[in-house]
This record gives sequence, structure tokens and C-alpha cells, in this order.
Amino acid sequence: MKNFEFKNPTKIIFGKDTIKKLETEVPKDAKVLLVYGGGSIKKNGIYNKVIKALANIELIEFGGIPANPEYEVLLKALKLIKEEKITYLLAVGGGSVIDGVKFLSAAALYEGDTPWDILAKNIKTEKGMPFGTVLTLPATGSEMNSGSVITRAETKEKLAMGGPGLFPVFSILDPQVVSSIPERQLANGLMDAYTHVLEQYMTYPSGALLQDRFAESILLTLIEIAPKVLKDPTDYEATSNFMWCCTMALNGLIQKGVPTDWAVHAMGHELTALFGIDHARTLAVIAPSHYTFNFETKKEKLAQYGSRVWNITEGSIDDKAYAAIEKTTEFFHSLGIDTKLSDYTKDYEGTAEKIAQRFTDRGWKGLGEHQSLSPDKVEKIVKMAY
Amino acid sequence: MKNFEFKNPTKIIFGKDTIKKLETEVPKDAKVLLVYGGGSIKKNGIYNKVIKALANIELIEFGGIPANPEYEVLLKALKLIKEEKITYLLAVGGGSVIDGVKFLSAAALYEGDTPWDILAKNIKTEKGMPFGTVLTLPATGSEMNSGSVITRAETKEKLAMGGPGLFPVFSILDPQVVSSIPERQLANGLMDAYTHVLEQYMTYPSGALLQDRFAESILLTLIEIAPKVLKDPTDYEATSNFMWCCTMALNGLIQKGVPTDWAVHAMGHELTALFGIDHARTLAVIAPSHYTFNFETKKEKLAQYGSRVWNITEGSIDDKAYAAIEKTTEFFHSLGIDTKLSDYTKDYEGTAEKIAQRFTDRGWKGLGEHQSLSPDKVEKIVKMAY
Repeated sequence: MKNFEFKNPTKIIFGKDTIKKLETEVPKDAKVLLVYGGGSIKKNGIYNKVIKALANIELIEFGGIPANPEYEVLLKALKLIKEEKITYLLAVGGGSVIDGVKFLSAAALYEGDTPWDILAKNIKTEKGMPFGTVLTLPATGSEMNSGSVITRAETKEKLAMGGPGLFPVFSILDPQVVSSIPERQLANGLMDAYTHVLEQYMTYPSGALLQDRFAESILLTLIEIAPKVLKDPTDYEATSNFMWCCTMALNGLIQKGVPTDWAVHAMGHELTALFGIDHARTLAVIAPSHYTFNFETKKEKLAQYGSRVWNITEGSIDDKAYAAIEKTTEFFHSLGIDTKLSDYTKDYEGTAEKIAQRFTDRGWKGLGEHQSLSPDKVEKIVKMAY
Repeated sequence: MKNFEFKNPTKIIFGKDTIKKLETEVPKDAKVLLVYGGGSIKKNGIYNKVIKALANIELIEFGGIPANPEYEVLLKALKLIKEEKITYLLAVGGGSVIDGVKFLSAAALYEGDTPWDILAKNIKTEKGMPFGTVLTLPATGSEMNSGSVITRAETKEKLAMGGPGLFPVFSILDPQVVSSIPERQLANGLMDAYTHVLEQYMTYPSGALLQDRFAESILLTLIEIAPKVLKDPTDYEATSNFMWCCTMALNGLIQKGVPTDWAVHAMGHELTALFGIDHARTLAVIAPSHYTFNFETKKEKLAQYGSRVWNITEGSIDDKAYAAIEKTTEFFHSLGIDTKLSDYTKDYEGTAEKIAQRFTDRGWKGLGEHQSLSPDKVEKIVKMAY
């Protein structure tokens, strides 16, 4: 096991009818900017619950944060925060809205020339404007971590940011919100959480026995509940486990003491930036090719995963590892998610070269747990995913 | 899954040679009371590492906290805290020292008549004096939770206390400390962590699928590493997983959203108070009888545990559940821990009646996840454990 530090101060408020607890969690003297997305919260009743709970709090709204939160849109919210002397942020939404609010939290207190530097120079935020979240879409885990990914439309870039000052003060997780989520987004959420675990697990054995078993626990639970969530999103047992799996998949716990990969995300982000493919679906495109290309360095963990998660008991390590990749691809298909780039666009020729060139331009020498995936290898992996 | 709230702000600093990080974790302007136990830290070198790391900090020492931290001893430390205007506490030790420091943290800022009330009236501490810990004995999980158990020798009582103000600010977990721990205490630590998990797991199915799997993960890991830790406490892979299992077994995570039992601890505490039997060993005495006595209400979880943790695949639910209790008892024996009260004392006659009477006197109507274990049932369970 590697040395690690772990601290996660976010207060989780989990369960049925918990949105009303906003009333006691938001400071009475706060001036709040309520941030949300495309307005689905007005249709599904969540907006009304939030407004009711905050009836005695001074509140301004900013709606319209798009999926893959855009820098230009966020700058408008930032202007409002400064003009209105906002002191507290509340994200009501999924990962995009929460990630957007994390950028706002950092940018509101940032004293440099331009808030773009927070992203471009990857400046760690030690102290941000305090914020809470009401999660409406289980997927990214952003509700209990301090990371964020922001898109800049004009340059087709997706960049990450974060820091210890960007944990939500609190996050309200009411699994009942799942009932109004469209099937496509449910599948995306299941896919996203599953891949988050793989990125922190599918590397090489590092003697972190408990972390491995925790990671496998999340995968096993997602596999168990996925068909139930998709079939009946009012099934509370399934949706509550879905929601808690998504949070636990990326709240820092399972990555502690282990090597991590994240190359699937790095490549996937480019597919979203280039083609606008849903984030989760880009992961399904890249992951099978990535594990096949890196078979030799990952096969021990692939075999362990095959055995413990997919109950593959027959054959050599190589046999189990290959079967595990197949099972994984089948699982993605069972979610209704395609796993080839050509399933999403006819215009895929040249994509691998373009992504490799972008990585070269950014000076990214090697991705993955061994920092060994140079741009030429990235090119091969993306090509395998056509 | 039940509704829950979860917040655990303790910063964990885990790994080799991490004690030196005290230098940056303890505030420069603090006046520190360094609290420890019987002095083993002076023999194994931990004391010297702590003193070296805190060379530039104002420091006063208080040694001699006994196993099962005693109220009378702690009052002496409390006097010192007030006389010396201490502002920060540092526990260097196992669960007893850390629990003792939690009492001191609460008592130092307590404004009532007598600090005994914190225990007797179970007063929740919202704000305590800040403290950190250096863990020298993996077992209780006290390094990452806000609970404490204090003993009053004169009345042979063990009482619990806690509150959100009693999380350590930081805890340093260097698994290398395990190498100098006597085998008896290693076995106790393994036993303690294992039973902590059982108390939060061995109840009835509640639809908390992920929590179940996390609990099973800790049990599986403890079973895997226990013989290695006992055979060679310098085996870093084994000891690091041992240490992290103990922390994760009682840092609040696996109890969220599920019913919990804790009757084994309630009965076990009485055996320590009456006979001075090691805390962990009292759990081994009570647990098998407790699960046998409550077989009908616990058999579904017993069978799930038997199947997933002990790989018992044959037979009915009842068969698997009985086999699971047997496997558990065998595991305790494999740690070198006896499971009958008569193994520890010849003077056991009347113990069951005495404990039942104590519970009656305290007004405890029903223990366990159904609050159904009335004093007469407690009497039967303890008798089964003779």
C-alpha cells in the first residue's frame, strides 16, 4: 500500500424527503446564488422544494448551466456573484451544475488576473466561497469531492481543477429524484460510476487489499442494481444504492494508497470536446480498447476483477483477464451504451491523430498508472476504438 | 436503506515514516499536552520520533493512561490542562489513550458542575479542545471517530460518550508501529475490528447493498491478513491492511443507512468491568452465544455472511447461518482467543444475573437492533457464554 492522506469534510444528508433540510444547513445570514441547469428541476418539483426550504433566505437564481459546464456561461454567473455580493452558493443539479459551482466558488475568491488561469495553470484552490449541493442526477460523485471539469467551447477544451477548498459544505442526496431522470441519463450515471471505479482499480496489484475489495463492492453493487434502476427508477432499494455507489466511487476513499489510471477519462474528454458525445459514453468507447491495448500491464488486476466481480473461475490469468474485458463490454451494452466511436459519428477518421496531437501540444508525455502512454500509444488506443 | 447523515472531518495521514508530519499538523502556537499510556512508546522508539517532530512546540507530558481509561486518572490530566493552560491535546497510543484524550477534550471545555455528567448523562460534545492522534495499536477505530468509552474503577462502570466535536483533527497511522506490538494485543486488535463490523452488519437485510459489501470487504481482508500479522508483524502489506481495516471498521461509514446491534459490546463491557478481561476477548465470549440465541432474527444476514465471507455454498439458510457461527468461532480460536467465560475465570457463577440486574438498574429495556433484548434475555445469553 502506498502512503496517503485522506480528508473529506463534506456532510452527506442522505435519504427520502431530505431536501427540506436545506432550511437548517444554509446559514441564516447568507446571500445565496441558486445555480441550476436546463430547468428540469422546475418540471420535476425539485425547484419548488428548494424554494420552499429556503423561504427565509435571501436568494438569487442563475439557471442554464449546460452539460459540460461552459466557461463563458459561468463568467456570467461570476459577474452576478460580484455585483450582488453573494456569500453562499447552492448547486441544484448533477455533476455539471456542481462542477460549475466549484469553479464559481474558486473564481469568486480568486485574486489573479483572469479566472481562466485557475484552469489553464491548474491552480489549487485552498479556500473557496462556501457552497452546498442538492444532487439531482447520480453519476459523477462531484457532490462529495473537491474536483471539477470545465469546458471552454471556443477552444473545444475540457480542463480539470480542484483543491481542498472545494469540497461542498453539505450535499443532500434524496434518491427519490432518480424517478424523474430519463433512461439515457440513468445509463450514463451507471456507466460513469462504474468507470470511475475502474480508473482507480484496474492498474496493478499494490497490496491495498481493502481498497481493492471496496472497489469491487461498488462494481458488484452497480451490476446488481443497474437493470433494476433502468427498469423501474422508482425502485428505492435500487436507486438508493445507485446514488450511494456513485458518491463512493469518487469521494477519494478507494483511490487512497493505490496507483490510479485516469487515461480513459483523458481520452474520453477529447471525444466529448470534439464530437459532443455524452461524457459517460466516451468512457464506454475508450475503456475496452484501453484495457486490451494495456493487457500485459493490467492483466493481474483484470483477472482478479474477472474472478471476484464476474465470477470467472476457469482458465489462466490471461483467459480470465480477456473474459473480464468481454464481460465489461457486455455490461456496457446491457446499459444500452455503444462502445465504438463509429456508433456515434461517421466523421471519426483522423480523430486518433488529432487527439494525439493535442496531447503532444499540451506537453502530456505519458498517461496512465505508469505514465507510459505517450501520444503515439494514445493514437493506437483511440484507433482501436473506432 | 435508512436515511442517514455522514460527516467525518478527520484528516488521516497514513503510511511509512509519517510520524514526522506532526511537525506541520500541530499548530505552531499551541501549548500541547502529550498523553500516552504505560510507557511502551519509550521502548519502541515512537516517543523519540514524536518529541523530535515537536521540537519547536511547547509541550507538557502526561503518561500512565491505563487500558480502559480510568476516570480518576483522567481527572489528574484535566487538572494539568487547566493549570498549564493547555490549548491542544495529542494522544500517542491505542484506543484507550485516544478515548481518554476525547474525554479530556470534552471535559476541558465543559462548563457543568462535574465532568462525570458528560458520561453519566451522556452529554453530546459539540465542541471540544482540538486534538490529534498518533496511533500505536490498531484496534478500536477511535482514531477516526468521535466516540469514547471511559471506565470508573470505583463503581466498576464503563460508559460511552461522544459528539461531533470529538473527531480528531488529524490521525497519523504508520503501520510500522505494529512490529513492536505483543501478539496478545495484535490478536485483540484483529478481534476488536472484526466484531465492530459484525455489530453493524449482523442484523437483518435492510436494502443497504453497498454497505453490506463494504462490511464484508473488511471481514474478508481481516481473515486474509490475520495469520500473516500474527506470524510476522513486520509484514507491511499485512499490517497496513490491518491498520486500515481497523479504522474503516468504526469510522461511521459502514453503519450509515443500516440497523446496528451493539449488544455484544454492551454485554462485553460488563465482563471487562467485572473481571478485567481484555475488551476484545469479552467480545469473543459473547458473540457466538449472542448470534446463536438470536438466530431466528439474524439468520438471513448470517447466511449471507456465511456465503460471501466464508464461501459456504451448500445447504438451507439455516444450515449456512449455523455454519457461519461455527466458522466465526473457529476464526476467533485461530487468533488464540478463547470464547467461553470459564476460560477466563473460575468465578463466573452468578455473572449473568449480575449483568442482567445492572441493565435493569440502568433502565435499559432492550438491546440490539430490535431493542428486544430485555435483561432476562441478556441473562440467558451470558449464561450460554459460560
